[in-house]
Amino acid sequence: MTTTRTLFFVSDGTGITAETLGQGLLSQFEGVTFLPQHFPFLDSLAKAEDCLAHIHAAKVQDGARPVVVMTLMDNQISALLRQADALFLDVFETFIAPLELELGQHSSHVVGRTHGQARHEAASRIAAIHFALAHDDGVTDADFAAADVILVGVSRSGKTPTSLYLSLQFSIKAANYPLIPEDFERDQLPPCLLPHAKKLFGLTIQPDYLHLIRQQRKPNSHYASLENCRYEVAAAERMMRRAQIPYLDTTARSIEEIAVKLKQALR
Amino acid sequence: MTTTRTLFFVSDGTGITAETLGQGLLSQFEGVTFLPQHFPFLDSLAKAEDCLAHIHAAKVQDGARPVVVMTLMDNQISALLRQADALFLDVFETFIAPLELELGQHSSHVVGRTHGQARHEAASRIAAIHFALAHDDGVTDADFAAADVILVGVSRSGKTPTSLYLSLQFSIKAANYPLIPEDFERDQLPPCLLPHAKKLFGLTIQPDYLHLIRQQRKPNSHYASLENCRYEVAAAERMMRRAQIPYLDTTARSIEEIAVKLKQALR
Repeated sequence: MTTTRTLFFVSDGTGITAETLGQGLLSQFEGVTFLPQHFPFLDSLAKAEDCLAHIHAAKVQDGARPVVVMTLMDNQISALLRQADALFLDVFETFIAPLELELGQHSSHVVGRTHGQARHEAASRIAAIHFALAHDDGVTDADFAAADVILVGVSRSGKTPTSLYLSLQFSIKAANYPLIPEDFERDQLPPCLLPHAKKLFGLTIQPDYLHLIRQQRKPNSHYASLENCRYEVAAAERMMRRAQIPYLDTTARSIEEIAVKLKQALR
Repeated sequence: MTTTRTLFFVSDGTGITAETLGQGLLSQFEGVTFLPQHFPFLDSLAKAEDCLAHIHAAKVQDGARPVVVMTLMDNQISALLRQADALFLDVFETFIAPLELELGQHSSHVVGRTHGQARHEAASRIAAIHFALAHDDGVTDADFAAADVILVGVSRSGKTPTSLYLSLQFSIKAANYPLIPEDFERDQLPPCLLPHAKKLFGLTIQPDYLHLIRQQRKPNSHYASLENCRYEVAAAERMMRRAQIPYLDTTARSIEEIAVKLKQALR
């Protein structure tokens, strides 16, 4: 059984679709080591020739057929690559034909349509990103009225990556506000949050994992101690339950999972 | 010809793969309006029943078959959904069988494998995000030695969204540093950048588009005037050429395109 395969991601756009799909499929095969090679923006026969040479070479080197995940609109370019002895997972070829039949339309075969965003889409996304940055980590509560969601939680519970991801991926305006020792002593949510109760969403985390994360940031501090992590998480969860703020445990969840679960809850 | 179709994204994980793929495919059909419905984390027969009811209802409402983009590992769940009268684009079913044959292995059929990241992967990604934030917009040059890339360009040329995307998507540590009026007067790159010449990458933008963006931020200011935008862009490009810094025009490019092109250039 072969254990190493070269894996080509070939696209006339960024290749992000091919890569997302390929990673998902190949994560299902544990015994195989995949060596990725990326060929984005492959939009000419000359570039296809170069890619073809790499596919040939990979087969010789691995002693096994490469796997090629393709999202290509141009049939001439696909045909050229298909001269190689490889397994082709051709996304558009596979799905465009049944879609054309179903919709009673020919596809436009326009390259890179996905990524040539309309300017107003781009603008609202950029606005969401700058909003997330301006309202990161409680920097300001000036514009909470404009927020789609306000994330709350203890330091290093995942608020910042989540709010940035929400802005970049979904153009959601996400502020985030930390719960800090003063809040736990008062045993009350920060007063600036109270007028925005309906937009609040909590992130929590298991104390032992929080301890590990904080140890990397400030080793052997009170801040990072397991005892303090336990105290802060318990106090934060108590405050959130009392204020009826929905919250989610981020431990062992990817940023994508947290963001999508939050987006579901917002609806 | 039908012009409205409901589009279901169904996944046992986040559904991001299904959505990325579906958007790419459907952008090829201009005459049809697609109404998206999202069913992420669909991991039980009860949830599948609920989704099935929505698919039935959408068909009645639209008077046309819905399109269902599926990434589901569980065959029982897929089979249940397939009772609906819809066009199914089943990603795993389509591609897993040829992969099993090619690799001589059965797939593990483990749900959500893609998104259950290893902790060290998650940690390097989070580190990259915090690096991008700490080194956004020239806040500090303290840790440029640890940067994978340092983006330079005029204000609002796209540096911040690009560096955040590089960190979130590719775990690349990207700092960004603005070129400002003082730099143009001196006609020299900021001195703190000089020791890191090999890591520098420039972003530029067409002056008329920059003018539009800046007008939204500070209407009718000198900063936003077309004349000043022309002056700044010309000066920035001249400095980058002289210092042999590769640079890219971000006008009409999505953040994804810029990030992937930059990643290619880094290699």
